[in-house]
Amino acid sequence: MFPALLDPVIDRALEEDLAGGDLTSEACVPPELEARATALAKRPLVVCGGALFRRVFERVDPRTQTDLLVADGALVAAGTALWQVRGNARALLAAERTALNFTQRLSGIATLARACVDALPTGSTTRITDTRKTTPGLRALERYAVRTGGAHNHRDQLGSAVLIKDNHVVAAGGVRAAIERARANAPHTTRIEVEVDTLAQLEDAIAARADIIMLDNFDTDATREAVRRVRSLGSVRPIIEVSGGITRERIGELAALGVDVISSGALTHSAPAADISLELTL
Amino acid sequence: MFPALLDPVIDRALEEDLAGGDLTSEACVPPELEARATALAKRPLVVCGGALFRRVFERVDPRTQTDLLVADGALVAAGTALWQVRGNARALLAAERTALNFTQRLSGIATLARACVDALPTGSTTRITDTRKTTPGLRALERYAVRTGGAHNHRDQLGSAVLIKDNHVVAAGGVRAAIERARANAPHTTRIEVEVDTLAQLEDAIAARADIIMLDNFDTDATREAVRRVRSLGSVRPIIEVSGGITRERIGELAALGVDVISSGALTHSAPAADISLELTL
Amino acid sequence: MFPALLDPVIDRALEEDLAGGDLTSEACVPPELEARATALAKRPLVVCGGALFRRVFERVDPRTQTDLLVADGALVAAGTALWQVRGNARALLAAERTALNFTQRLSGIATLARACVDALPTGSTTRITDTRKTTPGLRALERYAVRTGGAHNHRDQLGSAVLIKDNHVVAAGGVRAAIERARANAPHTTRIEVEVDTLAQLEDAIAARADIIMLDNFDTDATREAVRRVRSLGSVRPIIEVSGGITRERIGELAALGVDVISSGALTHSAPAADISLELTL
Amino acid sequence: MFPALLDPVIDRALEEDLAGGDLTSEACVPPELEARATALAKRPLVVCGGALFRRVFERVDPRTQTDLLVADGALVAAGTALWQVRGNARALLAAERTALNFTQRLSGIATLARACVDALPTGSTTRITDTRKTTPGLRALERYAVRTGGAHNHRDQLGSAVLIKDNHVVAAGGVRAAIERARANAPHTTRIEVEVDTLAQLEDAIAARADIIMLDNFDTDATREAVRRVRSLGSVRPIIEVSGGITRERIGELAALGVDVISSGALTHSAPAADISLELTL
Amino acid sequence: MFPALLDPVIDRALEEDLAGGDLTSEACVPPELEARATALAKRPLVVCGGALFRRVFERVDPRTQTDLLVADGALVAAGTALWQVRGNARALLAAERTALNFTQRLSGIATLARACVDALPTGSTTRITDTRKTTPGLRALERYAVRTGGAHNHRDQLGSAVLIKDNHVVAAGGVRAAIERARANAPHTTRIEVEVDTLAQLEDAIAARADIIMLDNFDTDATREAVRRVRSLGSVRPIIEVSGGITRERIGELAALGVDVISSGALTHSAPAADISLELTL
Amino acid sequence: MFPALLDPVIDRALEEDLAGGDLTSEACVPPELEARATALAKRPLVVCGGALFRRVFERVDPRTQTDLLVADGALVAAGTALWQVRGNARALLAAERTALNFTQRLSGIATLARACVDALPTGSTTRITDTRKTTPGLRALERYAVRTGGAHNHRDQLGSAVLIKDNHVVAAGGVRAAIERARANAPHTTRIEVEVDTLAQLEDAIAARADIIMLDNFDTDATREAVRRVRSLGSVRPIIEVSGGITRERIGELAALGVDVISSGALTHSAPAADISLELTL
Repeated sequence: MFPALLDPVIDRALEEDLAGGDLTSEACVPPELEARATALAKRPLVVCGGALFRRVFERVDPRTQTDLLVADGALVAAGTALWQVRGNARALLAAERTALNFTQRLSGIATLARACVDALPTGSTTRITDTRKTTPGLRALERYAVRTGGAHNHRDQLGSAVLIKDNHVVAAGGVRAAIERARANAPHTTRIEVEVDTLAQLEDAIAARADIIMLDNFDTDATREAVRRVRSLGSVRPIIEVSGGITRERIGELAALGVDVISSGALTHSAPAADISLELTL
Repeated sequence: MFPALLDPVIDRALEEDLAGGDLTSEACVPPELEARATALAKRPLVVCGGALFRRVFERVDPRTQTDLLVADGALVAAGTALWQVRGNARALLAAERTALNFTQRLSGIATLARACVDALPTGSTTRITDTRKTTPGLRALERYAVRTGGAHNHRDQLGSAVLIKDNHVVAAGGVRAAIERARANAPHTTRIEVEVDTLAQLEDAIAARADIIMLDNFDTDATREAVRRVRSLGSVRPIIEVSGGITRERIGELAALGVDVISSGALTHSAPAADISLELTL
Repeated sequence: MFPALLDPVIDRALEEDLAGGDLTSEACVPPELEARATALAKRPLVVCGGALFRRVFERVDPRTQTDLLVADGALVAAGTALWQVRGNARALLAAERTALNFTQRLSGIATLARACVDALPTGSTTRITDTRKTTPGLRALERYAVRTGGAHNHRDQLGSAVLIKDNHVVAAGGVRAAIERARANAPHTTRIEVEVDTLAQLEDAIAARADIIMLDNFDTDATREAVRRVRSLGSVRPIIEVSGGITRERIGELAALGVDVISSGALTHSAPAADISLELTL
Repeated sequence: MFPALLDPVIDRALEEDLAGGDLTSEACVPPELEARATALAKRPLVVCGGALFRRVFERVDPRTQTDLLVADGALVAAGTALWQVRGNARALLAAERTALNFTQRLSGIATLARACVDALPTGSTTRITDTRKTTPGLRALERYAVRTGGAHNHRDQLGSAVLIKDNHVVAAGGVRAAIERARANAPHTTRIEVEVDTLAQLEDAIAARADIIMLDNFDTDATREAVRRVRSLGSVRPIIEVSGGITRERIGELAALGVDVISSGALTHSAPAADISLELTL
Repeated sequence: MFPALLDPVIDRALEEDLAGGDLTSEACVPPELEARATALAKRPLVVCGGALFRRVFERVDPRTQTDLLVADGALVAAGTALWQVRGNARALLAAERTALNFTQRLSGIATLARACVDALPTGSTTRITDTRKTTPGLRALERYAVRTGGAHNHRDQLGSAVLIKDNHVVAAGGVRAAIERARANAPHTTRIEVEVDTLAQLEDAIAARADIIMLDNFDTDATREAVRRVRSLGSVRPIIEVSGGITRERIGELAALGVDVISSGALTHSAPAADISLELTL
Repeated sequence: MFPALLDPVIDRALEEDLAGGDLTSEACVPPELEARATALAKRPLVVCGGALFRRVFERVDPRTQTDLLVADGALVAAGTALWQVRGNARALLAAERTALNFTQRLSGIATLARACVDALPTGSTTRITDTRKTTPGLRALERYAVRTGGAHNHRDQLGSAVLIKDNHVVAAGGVRAAIERARANAPHTTRIEVEVDTLAQLEDAIAARADIIMLDNFDTDATREAVRRVRSLGSVRPIIEVSGGITRERIGELAALGVDVISSGALTHSAPAADISLELTL
């Protein structure tokens, strides 16, 4: 959440909305009028994006002053005041929509992430993670929102960890060959994950000593059996990840089966926007 | 959908996913291997983003060749092959996630837009539109998706049309003053829209000769009455737009009441991603 | 005039002039020397660009302090001090040319716009507007300069309003078809303008209920007749715009004929730079 | 005129005009319609910008094909066809205004440059040059236009040559000190130019062995005397440049006085746009 | 090595060298002259950057044609022709320096990496890696060069793996706490590395079950003892990395001691440029 | 060293290292912890990059405060504290590597430049210069480092001075023709340099009145003879530059032979990084 990384994203968003000026405010609002605007949660939500909210207004007018009334990660009730910004009225009106477009999305993701984490059984050590199915241009922000909601991140990009899928196995000539090549080439800081579609492939992955095994679209029985086989290996065993068709309802069941990681693309690609409004007082 | 406009958005998305290379493919996939990949609809959806899909692969490798098997705007059944791309296997794997992240989002919006349009009564002339509540950085693409689904666009940005809200009215000293200032200052190509919260404000807006009146969060009875009053003005009357809390269920009711435009932020900020997968054949 | 929008334009201009450093000042001016620079109007002009002037210096050195002695839009006499900036002498010298290149252009446009507005008969309601014939990269700034001079803006870009020309009519199969398609597709916030070359086309445009009719290169007699026909429609009639070969001399005549809008590309593409110098005091 | 340098400038200009799409063409022009467009000189002009014209269309649609019918630098009569482009009709209409905004400006500068060069006496060796008073963002293009018109370029930027002005002299403690410092610090590939306001300063500059002496706003008599003094030094003498208030009328006189270089900011900051139209045939 | 990622880096480099045009070639070389240029190794080197070489020329002129005569990774003798490009002579001359600046650096790094790898004892499984001490703006390219030379990459960036240093230990309140927090928060795809300065810290790191332990500036005896202790843990033990003051001479010794990874910042921050020239034939 | 020019370079470098966040600090370091970091010279070096160091931290967190304890250009002993920055601990850790990657490179170049200058005989007027063999993207910074070390810059780019090489001579039809064309076309502010390979070419260059003659890879005897011939021309003679295979050892010899300029690509392309560390105190 550093200016050097936020500014290009914010500036591009502002240009989309403001390249042609603000016809309405320029006509109706005196140029020197000061105002105050307060962001309000219209429904319960997990707050995310306070620093980004502040920066959007600063990029429109560096003299605006923003107070973050609630910290990122807080679960708040409907009606809660989240952030308050004071400054030139035209600047506040010009930045309003962009600031909300960012923070409604991030808070929506954080809220969904929290709901998924809350769906875990009490005391569960299972981890909910995102995937690379993020909005183009907003990956770092959306990953932050996932963490803000209490879930975890999966690998950041294709260059930060190894995940061997069907096609890689075919191209490499088998699971063992794929894992060995990956381990020989990838940074030593990286674990080797393999996606499997069947219990037979699971055995291959275990034999080839994958660090992480992703069960792709396994049903409950197959998942139970896969977990049994992996856990029977003792303390030095692969991490078990499940993916595909994760709903909030299935999370409890999957965690109870003993998987380590549940990864869900919906966390980022299908979270509805949180309902936040900006109340302006001239 | 011109390269000059698409490329910055695509390149930024690719950099998010590929700045560190693709550890897995570099280890497992021979550098000269050719492959073919087909995008498949996993569920019924309205197709959107074929040209963008092609361009993502071209930006990773200009030698890839993409066939658009189905045109944007088509409603397809689950299992339909949408687009097919041939080329270097590493390039296809490198571009896959980014191409899908874009097109799943756009097709998701188009699919939701179509559902909203289909919720209109047969023969209705009511128009469904988006708002400025778009994903930062993707406004032009999302507006295209809205049109692809058969809905319409609202104003593009703060500089392309006038929309007078509460604060503008307060700052200008009344609805009439606000409208007059806006009409005196804005381009003559632009209509003047006013948002009203009450029937009293509606009367003011009518008296001040607003071109468009937006009924903000009116309930059914108030909407009916507002429509009655406006339509009683005869053929030269303001356009009636409703906004706030639009659900697919309410669309039919609102259209039956005789409103001209129903605008919905959810079209873009809360559309779930369409389910599209890419099947690779080496 | 927000930093998020100004900075990319300013930074690019500074890079053009400073990428290789400033050989002369680095050799001749002590690094810590402070100075003061005052922008002076060398001839009468309409001031435009104070905030931009300040921001150019801030982008070179955030510690510079600028006073805007005269507000944008003021008509000043030769010799008037417009803006004053204090700070590091090397920074002032490095930013000088870029700051002047911007503001001489904007003030030149504002001055020409004012001259055109002043050419209107007293009490005239005719509006002078710019066109999309702006300098590539500077459209938002030049449109601001046009407004600063007292003239108005036409549509901002191809996506902010409809303007049907010959080729659109041919492609659509007639004026009526073109207008109907445009009205059916474009945002409801947008008026529909049609360009006509003959009185026959004018009749078509009136029949098809265009919101705005642009008389393209009509001579005086044809303009008079066109205005007569449109105004005979009563209070609910198209706006009449004239374009093509607008000189300051013709403005009075056209306004007297009763046109509503006179649009002129020369306002932005051929305005001579205003004469502003920067006097430095070490 | 290489893509790596042109594309950022072109893409930004296209984004200004097309970020919101092209409402009119999308409504009226069939998506697959092919067309041909021809750029015509409406008045006599010096052609400039053919490659840029082609590239603008390519950035909108890489499949467009452009023929440059006339080479840059040609002086053509009114009515001459300059360039012709074929391709998708929507693409041609989308790129039209941007392509013309660039080339009308460049051809306007080239035409003015040619007029200035033509104002030199027959056989004159005096050189007409531009200054750094170029349009922000377009310096390289405008300098190219100046050369295309037959004039010359002055230094490209503050880092490519030394030009000592009043303030540098004051800061350095005299003309001699300024020149010595500059010569000691600047690249050996660079000549040292000094601006002088009086004949006394001219003597100092000669004594300090400036390579180029710029006579700033000298009247005719002072110019004559300055030229006499410099030329009396023999074959190893400073280059004499004059600047300030250059009109086309004065060029002949100044050249006849024997100055080497006449630099004029108006070449770039006040050249009216050349009159070029694009005729589209569907 | 995809255009979407290469182009911004290449275009910026070309702008540094060509923003002001190419004075010499424009004056001396006919505009339509064709030529051929061949890159030659002036000394033995490991080739790196062929695709980048080609792309630099394409960005200056898309019609240039480049043959890569030798594949990246080859160790070639002095005098070997590496790459050959044909096209417009002015374009070749304009791109020459930029193409060489890139490839001399990359080949220099690859050559040094190869030398380090060759310094390992025959049959050694020790891995040589880079660090994050790369040239700002060129990280992805330099990491590619390291791999091209046969060495390996360390983590790509601060977000792709955990590396706990002194300050993190202090801030977290001990090695164990730091590791536990990192493991609880970081993606499950990431290993946890800890840097230790003493054998006591090594014991803490072992006890806290670090995945990788970096011995920072250990001398030979301490390294030997550290390796002994770690290897005594059996097959499930941390990876041993050494860093600090790595010279080519020490590599053999360190590998013989049994360390797993030797990381060296000098690979990228101090590799001398490879000697490559471009021979042009008109 | 102005923000407008530094920021794009810095932001890109920060994005390389921080796009995925800082896994370690986010896990281990409390978000509000304050700290202090001091940059220390680990070996003797010439300091370069203080302002850049400060700006890197400011771009990560504008509230950081940096003191430059030693000015750029100072030669310091091992152990010297160079710069000190205070602020948020996470921000300091996030910016550390990028700040050092820049300043180690610049100080490395400055240190090498100083060593080359120190290799000149006492009282020598010979000048050491860089070339265009700079790191892509960092030219302005590296040229600054060269000056900071006491050496000089050669031409900044292809557009800031003329340097005629073999191919230009061939294309132009001889040395004389090449020089005449260059002088006729290039800005009058620019000297004309010609590269020669033989004494015969030297004679041609003298005859054609080149301003600067570069002796390319001349051996000692040929250099001596070339200097003799040029100096025999008296006070109005070309500047003599030597290039090719410059080592620190040869500098003294070449200066003693009487050459004016020694240009060396190694100054920028092969300078080893200076050894600077950042000591953090929480």
